Amino acid sequence: MPETSSRRSEKSGLPPGTVVHVGDRPDGPAILSVIDYDEQGFSERVGVDLEACLASVHAPSMTWINVAGLHDSGLIEKLGQALGVHPLVLEDIANASQRPKVEDYESYFFIVLKMLEYDQTLNQVRVEQVSLILGDNYLISFQEDANDVFEPVRTRLRNSAGRLRKFAADYLAYALIDAIVDNYFVILELLGDEIEEIEEQVAQKPENHPLPAIYRLKREMIALRRAVWPLREVLALLQHSESPLIRPGTAIYLRDVYDHTIQIMDTIESMRDLLSGMLDVYLSVLSNRMNEIVKVLTIFSTIFIPLTFLAGVYGMNFRHFPEIEWRFGYAAFWLACGVIAVIMLLYFRRKRWL
Amino acid sequence: MPETSSRRSEKSGLPPGTVVHVGDRPDGPAILSVIDYDEQGFSERVGVDLEACLASVHAPSMTWINVAGLHDSGLIEKLGQALGVHPLVLEDIANASQRPKVEDYESYFFIVLKMLEYDQTLNQVRVEQVSLILGDNYLISFQEDANDVFEPVRTRLRNSAGRLRKFAADYLAYALIDAIVDNYFVILELLGDEIEEIEEQVAQKPENHPLPAIYRLKREMIALRRAVWPLREVLALLQHSESPLIRPGTAIYLRDVYDHTIQIMDTIESMRDLLSGMLDVYLSVLSNRMNEIVKVLTIFSTIFIPLTFLAGVYGMNFRHFPEIEWRFGYAAFWLACGVIAVIMLLYFRRKRWL
Amino acid sequence: MPETSSRRSEKSGLPPGTVVHVGDRPDGPAILSVIDYDEQGFSERVGVDLEACLASVHAPSMTWINVAGLHDSGLIEKLGQALGVHPLVLEDIANASQRPKVEDYESYFFIVLKMLEYDQTLNQVRVEQVSLILGDNYLISFQEDANDVFEPVRTRLRNSAGRLRKFAADYLAYALIDAIVDNYFVILELLGDEIEEIEEQVAQKPENHPLPAIYRLKREMIALRRAVWPLREVLALLQHSESPLIRPGTAIYLRDVYDHTIQIMDTIESMRDLLSGMLDVYLSVLSNRMNEIVKVLTIFSTIFIPLTFLAGVYGMNFRHFPEIEWRFGYAAFWLACGVIAVIMLLYFRRKRWL
Amino acid sequence: MPETSSRRSEKSGLPPGTVVHVGDRPDGPAILSVIDYDEQGFSERVGVDLEACLASVHAPSMTWINVAGLHDSGLIEKLGQALGVHPLVLEDIANASQRPKVEDYESYFFIVLKMLEYDQTLNQVRVEQVSLILGDNYLISFQEDANDVFEPVRTRLRNSAGRLRKFAADYLAYALIDAIVDNYFVILELLGDEIEEIEEQVAQKPENHPLPAIYRLKREMIALRRAVWPLREVLALLQHSESPLIRPGTAIYLRDVYDHTIQIMDTIESMRDLLSGMLDVYLSVLSNRMNEIVKVLTIFSTIFIPLTFLAGVYGMNFRHFPEIEWRFGYAAFWLACGVIAVIMLLYFRRKRWL
Amino acid sequence: MPETSSRRSEKSGLPPGTVVHVGDRPDGPAILSVIDYDEQGFSERVGVDLEACLASVHAPSMTWINVAGLHDSGLIEKLGQALGVHPLVLEDIANASQRPKVEDYESYFFIVLKMLEYDQTLNQVRVEQVSLILGDNYLISFQEDANDVFEPVRTRLRNSAGRLRKFAADYLAYALIDAIVDNYFVILELLGDEIEEIEEQVAQKPENHPLPAIYRLKREMIALRRAVWPLREVLALLQHSESPLIRPGTAIYLRDVYDHTIQIMDTIESMRDLLSGMLDVYLSVLSNRMNEIVKVLTIFSTIFIPLTFLAGVYGMNFRHFPEIEWRFGYAAFWLACGVIAVIMLLYFRRKRWL
Repeated sequence: MPETSSRRSEKSGLPPGTVVHVGDRPDGPAILSVIDYDEQGFSERVGVDLEACLASVHAPSMTWINVAGLHDSGLIEKLGQALGVHPLVLEDIANASQRPKVEDYESYFFIVLKMLEYDQTLNQVRVEQVSLILGDNYLISFQEDANDVFEPVRTRLRNSAGRLRKFAADYLAYALIDAIVDNYFVILELLGDEIEEIEEQVAQKPENHPLPAIYRLKREMIALRRAVWPLREVLALLQHSESPLIRPGTAIYLRDVYDHTIQIMDTIESMRDLLSGMLDVYLSVLSNRMNEIVKVLTIFSTIFIPLTFLAGVYGMNFRHFPEIEWRFGYAAFWLACGVIAVIMLLYFRRKRWL
Repeated sequence: MPETSSRRSEKSGLPPGTVVHVGDRPDGPAILSVIDYDEQGFSERVGVDLEACLASVHAPSMTWINVAGLHDSGLIEKLGQALGVHPLVLEDIANASQRPKVEDYESYFFIVLKMLEYDQTLNQVRVEQVSLILGDNYLISFQEDANDVFEPVRTRLRNSAGRLRKFAADYLAYALIDAIVDNYFVILELLGDEIEEIEEQVAQKPENHPLPAIYRLKREMIALRRAVWPLREVLALLQHSESPLIRPGTAIYLRDVYDHTIQIMDTIESMRDLLSGMLDVYLSVLSNRMNEIVKVLTIFSTIFIPLTFLAGVYGMNFRHFPEIEWRFGYAAFWLACGVIAVIMLLYFRRKRWL
Repeated sequence: MPETSSRRSEKSGLPPGTVVHVGDRPDGPAILSVIDYDEQGFSERVGVDLEACLASVHAPSMTWINVAGLHDSGLIEKLGQALGVHPLVLEDIANASQRPKVEDYESYFFIVLKMLEYDQTLNQVRVEQVSLILGDNYLISFQEDANDVFEPVRTRLRNSAGRLRKFAADYLAYALIDAIVDNYFVILELLGDEIEEIEEQVAQKPENHPLPAIYRLKREMIALRRAVWPLREVLALLQHSESPLIRPGTAIYLRDVYDHTIQIMDTIESMRDLLSGMLDVYLSVLSNRMNEIVKVLTIFSTIFIPLTFLAGVYGMNFRHFPEIEWRFGYAAFWLACGVIAVIMLLYFRRKRWL
Repeated sequence: MPETSSRRSEKSGLPPGTVVHVGDRPDGPAILSVIDYDEQGFSERVGVDLEACLASVHAPSMTWINVAGLHDSGLIEKLGQALGVHPLVLEDIANASQRPKVEDYESYFFIVLKMLEYDQTLNQVRVEQVSLILGDNYLISFQEDANDVFEPVRTRLRNSAGRLRKFAADYLAYALIDAIVDNYFVILELLGDEIEEIEEQVAQKPENHPLPAIYRLKREMIALRRAVWPLREVLALLQHSESPLIRPGTAIYLRDVYDHTIQIMDTIESMRDLLSGMLDVYLSVLSNRMNEIVKVLTIFSTIFIPLTFLAGVYGMNFRHFPEIEWRFGYAAFWLACGVIAVIMLLYFRRKRWL
Repeated sequence: MPETSSRRSEKSGLPPGTVVHVGDRPDGPAILSVIDYDEQGFSERVGVDLEACLASVHAPSMTWINVAGLHDSGLIEKLGQALGVHPLVLEDIANASQRPKVEDYESYFFIVLKMLEYDQTLNQVRVEQVSLILGDNYLISFQEDANDVFEPVRTRLRNSAGRLRKFAADYLAYALIDAIVDNYFVILELLGDEIEEIEEQVAQKPENHPLPAIYRLKREMIALRRAVWPLREVLALLQHSESPLIRPGTAIYLRDVYDHTIQIMDTIESMRDLLSGMLDVYLSVLSNRMNEIVKVLTIFSTIFIPLTFLAGVYGMNFRHFPEIEWRFGYAAFWLACGVIAVIMLLYFRRKRWL
């Protein structure tokens, strides 16, 4: 649960609307990048200051401001105040433990999303919060880290190809959400590969202890579900919103992303079923193995029990002990042992214990 | 999960509406076949080119175009553009990892279905995606493979019998959906036979390890459920649609297929219950067997323990050892052994351990 | 799952509305019986032909036609066509694998119900499909077999007592549904008796293997639930129907049957809970027994282990072996054995292992 | 399930509205008691006859008739007919296997409730059915047995204190329902005490076999839930009823009882969770104990195995056997035994098996 | 379940609206504190008497009365009557076993909340009931104990900073609810720390018996859920209330707390999943350990069984016993033992049992 970082409690007692960063990313300055575009032109600046951003917003062309890094509460507050954003929204942007949600503030939409990243070194999915403020001719996106999930969208803007440059900020917001959701498929396929690997282990090499990996994946699935599930509602609300900020032509695209999130939910459910099945199989494989061992060893020792008793008998020191005196007593003893062992083996086989 | 094939991630980053095939069928050209019919006439052509198809669509008679094979993205795109189909629809047609759904684009319906096939060699149900575009006087169906589930419908068209030739494209769409759903019953009966077979094994020959088969069938059930469950909603939406594309008389037939899907869901649920029950029975049969073995062997060895001790006692070398000297000491030893064994057996029987 | 008989797949590929019998009852002719009644008169004929039936329907008095046996598809079709019944309804009547449902065809209601029978020889509940066509002044009932659940209704009609002769066909339909639901209580009490019997076995004689009986009853419960659950909806729909076929005074009676089905659902749920509890109890009784055996035998053998070791020690052949020479060495050995055994028993008791 | 007594099946086949007692209380005459009251006066009579009751109902003051005992079907029928009560209501009053429900018959409400009693001798909760007919200026209550849950209400009526004498029959109905629900809290606390007792046993003395008690309580919880759950709906319906029989000021009191039933449901759910937790704890305590025993005994016998082997070795009769001849051979043997035992104990400790 | 204290049953039989304290806090006098404020002024008094409180309420400035301690039923009744509060509300205030709820009495809202406290000495979460009466220009809060969760709100009032002094009583109510919900995060993080600690134990030191701690935390989670879950509904009702007591600007803040409660529910669900997973891991770790021990010891004893038999054989006293006479018989015996042991070890290794 990286979302409920230990710093959430520090906010306890502060008045509502206080912008305090809650999250587990390392400190660092916030990087602002601005893209201005319309059907004709396109300009992109990285690492600009706040004033330049605000100037762009007030220009007539579409403006996309990306803020990477949430530690600079002052910056977020200033940006928000200049655009007339409600203090509670700013508080939520800085607090990376939100659920995906959408809020309609009439002059803008506030959208919270979860972006996923697969950390190859830790074999772990990391969840990053992305907040969008969608205004009439601007879109502001807030990320915890700079990363390149949005890069394809930027490339499409640069190339001036496709619908992106012709449409308004709502279509850009859709494009970003679509990029995030497309990335979910990539993550799910990575996890799917891992699941397949473990499935093989379970059947072939149960001594590799796949249990922790299965439990880890089960937990990842729960975390994924938590990130994706509320997204459906977000998209349904945007799609059926009657706000003029969402142009009529965009709804059909939002329905498409909505469909994708349902596919993702389906895949997550399949994977959970798979993992539960694997767990059951693994436990029954283990217990079968154990039973097999105990059975074989028990049968083995059971065969020797009467033989050892017999050896004990002929080790007795009775004065009057006829067999001891016999010429072939010793040979008869071994014969008896062999007969007993064979009878017992036949009995066990007939009982299908062997 | 053959639906979430490894190529889904290749689409990540592409702009929406890009037609890219996602699926796991081998490559091959798409085969177009066209059927034109009205109450009077009927003509059928297989392997025609795109232009011929489009000409048929614009003719006044009903036209059914079937596209078998989804690899030729260019073909799908051209066909779509000529008929004014939305790019997102074309993208979904090419991507065989859709859920069953229906979308109303006013001048046409877009319907996605899952067709099932039982692969006898692999003992596995394969899922194939079928997409329908239902226009005013045409129906276009897209399949991943050419196969003969639609053959009975073609035969009925050829024979000019029944309602099929008199009614419009919506009734043809119903007939295709009905053919697909009828086929579900066939698949379910095949699986039901397999379940019965395994049920017998579980009770009679638990040593055959029916566990993997049970888990495989459980997984098939989940996959089936996923294919059938959203179909109910599709049919309900079509049935209650107010679009002029669905004629009033067709709704009653759609309700009938809707009923069939509910029966199928019921059967799937029964089968899942059966499989869960079988699993429980199998595990308890196994554990009973194991317990039986351990119990018998433990009792057996327990009977010998005091006997072996007694033999040990009379193997001791004490100088002053009265019994050793007795005339019938050895015989008395065997008598004692017999008495001890009988007493213990009686005790175990009285305790109902034997 | 007797409902999904192996012949369902034979219908695959046939056009909708084809009347084909699907079911598992033995072949036999259909028997028609007709009852005409109004407040003044009553006439009953068994084994009449179709024409006589139809004549009755067109007479002004109320007519109840009962068709026992669904193999004669031709008869069903002719009867249906004469009364203007939709082909899909006829198809459903012949196909005994329907779920309970009600369909409003304006001039008549089509109602499907499940009747239960307890087969004493097989210790099994059999499900029979009953279809009703409720018209303005007639009611047609279709059964798979002739049986006497409806007999009390006939008797009440004959006796001219009660509301039955005064009211219209809807009240007769209610009376038949009520007879079927009343019969559910009888079946449930039979099953309840069986459950009580098994419950006693579980506690008293776990060696009787009550597991298969428990699983069988669990499965019966699921089958019952499937028969009763959709009935609630059927009754709610009839009760709140605005069709003139359902007279205002009948709704209050339908609410009463509705209440009964809820009671039945409740009882089924109780029984399922009981069975699940019994299963848990049985498994824990079994495992306790097994543990008890293993514990006692392990303790028993553990007591003998040091004694056997001691006997082994005094069976050693060392030249210099002081105890061997002692006058009371042998007696001391037995004393030592007794002391060791007592100490161990006391230890086990203190640990509460005995 | 005492509600579904074996006599329910006797009603099968009888026409609807036939008043037949279904229940498991011993036979006995019905006792009628009548209370007449208004703001000024109060009169109470016990054991009166039907005519006196009916006279009271037709007088202008409020009348509360209590009928204790449901065996006298004739009485119930006569009372019902005199007040114009629907036959189905009378049937339901006599049949003690109803679920809690409310039915609005315009001129009166019919309310069914379940009263609980804790039978100290059987350690069991008994469920009693209470039916109320709430008319404009009368309330008739039907109980299976005479008992004193309603006594506090009578006392309040006698004392003329509180709202009770000033308000109409609906407030009296509320007071009776409130008395029944208050009694649930008493029952729940008794069960809570029992649960606490068992919880201690589970942790302290698992050898007392608390399993049957846990299962019994689990079943009681299910029975309670079944009695309380539908009551919520009853109260919600009464509270939001628009009938003039429910005065506006009473709704606020009904909301209060409604709140209480939700608290009771909550407590029941807590108790079920507690019981499930206890069950899990008990089973794991048992299995831990068993494992502990098996582990200790196995280790114990494992230590003796090499020692016994060694004693066996020195009991061998080889002619050439150097150790046997040694002066301190026997002492060396004991030394070797000690060393082996200590090494093994150290090994087991290091492995943390001891 | 501290909420359903043993004294709830004492209320059984009392008329509704009787104010009786139900709770488990030690006795003590109620402490009243009054804060009067408006945008200009602020006055705070602790330990005042009832009359002073009422005077404040009737003054035009905003008044917040806090009552700490619920034992003084008389005080609560007098306060309630002076303000025209319904007797049922007063009854609920005194009874600390309420669920969170909101009730609209037109001239005031009655709100019940649950405050959480982590008792460090008992390692236990304590639940305290807080009731609010929100009038037009006053807010009365009732607590079971004096504690300092509300202190930050008081500080903000004193400092005259923020929105608090400018807004009406509804905003103050929001601030108190927000303080309580903020405190939930603190509690959850404490529990989260404990869970992490136990998680480490489960993996590293299963011999520490983490089971009781896991079950305790599971139960805490259920108790938390019960406190938080109904709060969502309370906040949704307040937020969408059309009462003039809730000013339009406050709704947006209530939505913010609502979001927080959903985050808390999410965290609770995560923690429950974690705990369930830990339980499974712990049980499988335990059983693996046990199996490991049994396996190793069984193999160990199995190796010695044939060796002990062999030693028994050469301890036999047969007259004609060739090996006994051999020169190197004894050495050959040890060689045979070594060979047997090595073969068995190799066999076990090949079978991967070691």
